[in-house]
Amino acid sequence: MDWNKEIPGILTEVREKKPLVHHLTNWVTIYDCANVTRAIGALPVMAHAAEEVQEMASIAQALVLNIGTLTPKFIESMVLAGKKANELGVPVVLDAVGAGATKLRTDKAKELMEKAKFAVIKGNSSEIAVLAGIDAKTRGVEASKVEGDLKMVAKTLAKNSGATIVITGKEDIVSNGECTAIVKNGHELMGCFVGTGCMLASVLGAFCGAERNSFKAAAAAAVCYGIAGELAAKKADKPAAYKNEFFDEIFSLDADTVKKMAKISDVD
Amino acid sequence: MDWNKEIPGILTEVREKKPLVHHLTNWVTIYDCANVTRAIGALPVMAHAAEEVQEMASIAQALVLNIGTLTPKFIESMVLAGKKANELGVPVVLDAVGAGATKLRTDKAKELMEKAKFAVIKGNSSEIAVLAGIDAKTRGVEASKVEGDLKMVAKTLAKNSGATIVITGKEDIVSNGECTAIVKNGHELMGCFVGTGCMLASVLGAFCGAERNSFKAAAAAAVCYGIAGELAAKKADKPAAYKNEFFDEIFSLDADTVKKMAKISDVD
Amino acid sequence: MDWNKEIPGILTEVREKKPLVHHLTNWVTIYDCANVTRAIGALPVMAHAAEEVQEMASIAQALVLNIGTLTPKFIESMVLAGKKANELGVPVVLDAVGAGATKLRTDKAKELMEKAKFAVIKGNSSEIAVLAGIDAKTRGVEASKVEGDLKMVAKTLAKNSGATIVITGKEDIVSNGECTAIVKNGHELMGCFVGTGCMLASVLGAFCGAERNSFKAAAAAAVCYGIAGELAAKKADKPAAYKNEFFDEIFSLDADTVKKMAKISDVD
Repeated sequence: MDWNKEIPGILTEVREKKPLVHHLTNWVTIYDCANVTRAIGALPVMAHAAEEVQEMASIAQALVLNIGTLTPKFIESMVLAGKKANELGVPVVLDAVGAGATKLRTDKAKELMEKAKFAVIKGNSSEIAVLAGIDAKTRGVEASKVEGDLKMVAKTLAKNSGATIVITGKEDIVSNGECTAIVKNGHELMGCFVGTGCMLASVLGAFCGAERNSFKAAAAAAVCYGIAGELAAKKADKPAAYKNEFFDEIFSLDADTVKKMAKISDVD
Repeated sequence: MDWNKEIPGILTEVREKKPLVHHLTNWVTIYDCANVTRAIGALPVMAHAAEEVQEMASIAQALVLNIGTLTPKFIESMVLAGKKANELGVPVVLDAVGAGATKLRTDKAKELMEKAKFAVIKGNSSEIAVLAGIDAKTRGVEASKVEGDLKMVAKTLAKNSGATIVITGKEDIVSNGECTAIVKNGHELMGCFVGTGCMLASVLGAFCGAERNSFKAAAAAAVCYGIAGELAAKKADKPAAYKNEFFDEIFSLDADTVKKMAKISDVD
Repeated sequence: MDWNKEIPGILTEVREKKPLVHHLTNWVTIYDCANVTRAIGALPVMAHAAEEVQEMASIAQALVLNIGTLTPKFIESMVLAGKKANELGVPVVLDAVGAGATKLRTDKAKELMEKAKFAVIKGNSSEIAVLAGIDAKTRGVEASKVEGDLKMVAKTLAKNSGATIVITGKEDIVSNGECTAIVKNGHELMGCFVGTGCMLASVLGAFCGAERNSFKAAAAAAVCYGIAGELAAKKADKPAAYKNEFFDEIFSLDADTVKKMAKISDVD
């Protein structure tokens, strides 16, 4: 893939199309999920009532489902929204927060995957491993060590689900089953505040709302997000200051910088 | 209206009376709604359980109802709180977030207007147009273009509802049906982060808690809020940095600055 | 107590053990409760569904129950989580936000105290007074003046409940019924933004997750938190800037600084 051309192009598309990204997400990071959606150039809307999610999903260009503070009732709204989005061809992103930490999270993430079709499924190594049927434990919302080859896990889950899989970590793995890419952008400081993962899901939504090839969209989102993280690390090294810089770098990110700083490689 | 005298006076009243502002608001911006209430000099309390909203509204000096992440059950709590506030003469502010985006939002906003009496109803152009019975579409929570004269829309809805209407936008329109004012304070950067509208509703609540003339209170709130936005724009031009400056300008705002910077004019 | 040795030691333990702190907390400050947990060196997880709270509490090293935006249903989840934590010896912290403001809050805080055993119960003067059976009124979530000797209130409630009691205020009072300490660290600017109390509850959770003596843990948490507040006040004097500095000081706090700056004394 000619990523040096693709990624700046997709970022530009996001800014021009300003996709409306409908979220059903958790109550912890919901505000900054909305803020990051706006910072990258898209428009957020958060709506979870069963009575309106189908209508809201219908006017959106992407839908993000994040199970961070799930309840069974909330999942029902997610299913309604997801099915409607599928029906209308609106791309859907799943952030499987905490899958592998409790039975509820694992079961409900799997239920969502059965009932809706996802453009992108995102999680850390143990969350994705659990969805791929591997025995792994998530410590709350923190990844735990997963045995085996994560690239293969991503590929297999991609093939089985039809979604592009994004495994976040020191290196991000992006695979649609056919193509797999490794993203080396990012900075460890991105882990010093809460919600980096959730906000990536929002950015994935924004990119999927502008670019229909979910593999390209997901890889581009991971690269851009990681670059903002690297740029912020040049300006701050503590959580609150770093988070502020990170948001402002996402907002300021331009195609040229992305072209220069992208560290992504296609792998087998 | 002698706004140069009125507005600084009302701001001073807010700081002296420290009204308790009870919110039933959305889960996206709730934290910064509380923070902005405190920054302007009032005291926030957020409580939504049907079992306590009447009691909480009873000890408050203002009530803010914001439908940003509504559910039918949440609206029931709003009705309870709103009726109790009406009974006790506690002013109530409605922020009709997303009216015109889904049937649920439009219907429930109208239901609230039928069941409770509002001191102030606030929204962007398409949200207010929809409440005034005009055919308009809100894109998620973003205003869309409304045909016709917004001043007339505000006036008509004010007359029909008995509330002071605030239409936010490049210029804010404030009308109680008899008097109408245009507020030219504000800065486009106020739209670079999420929740500017919600937080204005909180500030409207604080001002209504200190000044019983809701037209004066609403106009003063819009002017002060807009001035803080202008002052912040002198210090930062990116979302996170700007938001921080904006809050700190709200906190620091003094009567003299407000007097000098107010841009408000009475219109027919 | 040799606090100059104890407190730096406990802070170091928190950073080394990185306890997982499970929260059932309010929707207002939930994000910064998670962030402060991480900033102090622990790991947050927020989960409230009845279907998963027992399992989540089982993998945690501490549980924080905060009733800031309670509903009866939410309290049921808290009871489930609290009982499971008790069963497994996981320390539980109660933040009795708004007890004394409404009957629901007072009743539910008392119900929680009957149904679960707490390592630490935290509140401002009127919240704790109400739980101790004293007639006091809380203004929303703001303390009101309490008649009588707060130290004695803390001691009595500690004896009756078996919990370490923390009364926050200009000086914090920490008592387990046998031992009582006064913490003079802290800064008035900590009140300029919303959630300082909630976030202290999260830090109390983190410290209880690392140190099983809840009196030592609570005193150490109050001291460290207050010191961060003092350090932040040297760098900023407005709410948003101050809050950012406060978080970054919590993150940066080291054992030596804590040793030098601790202002705590044992009292009768």
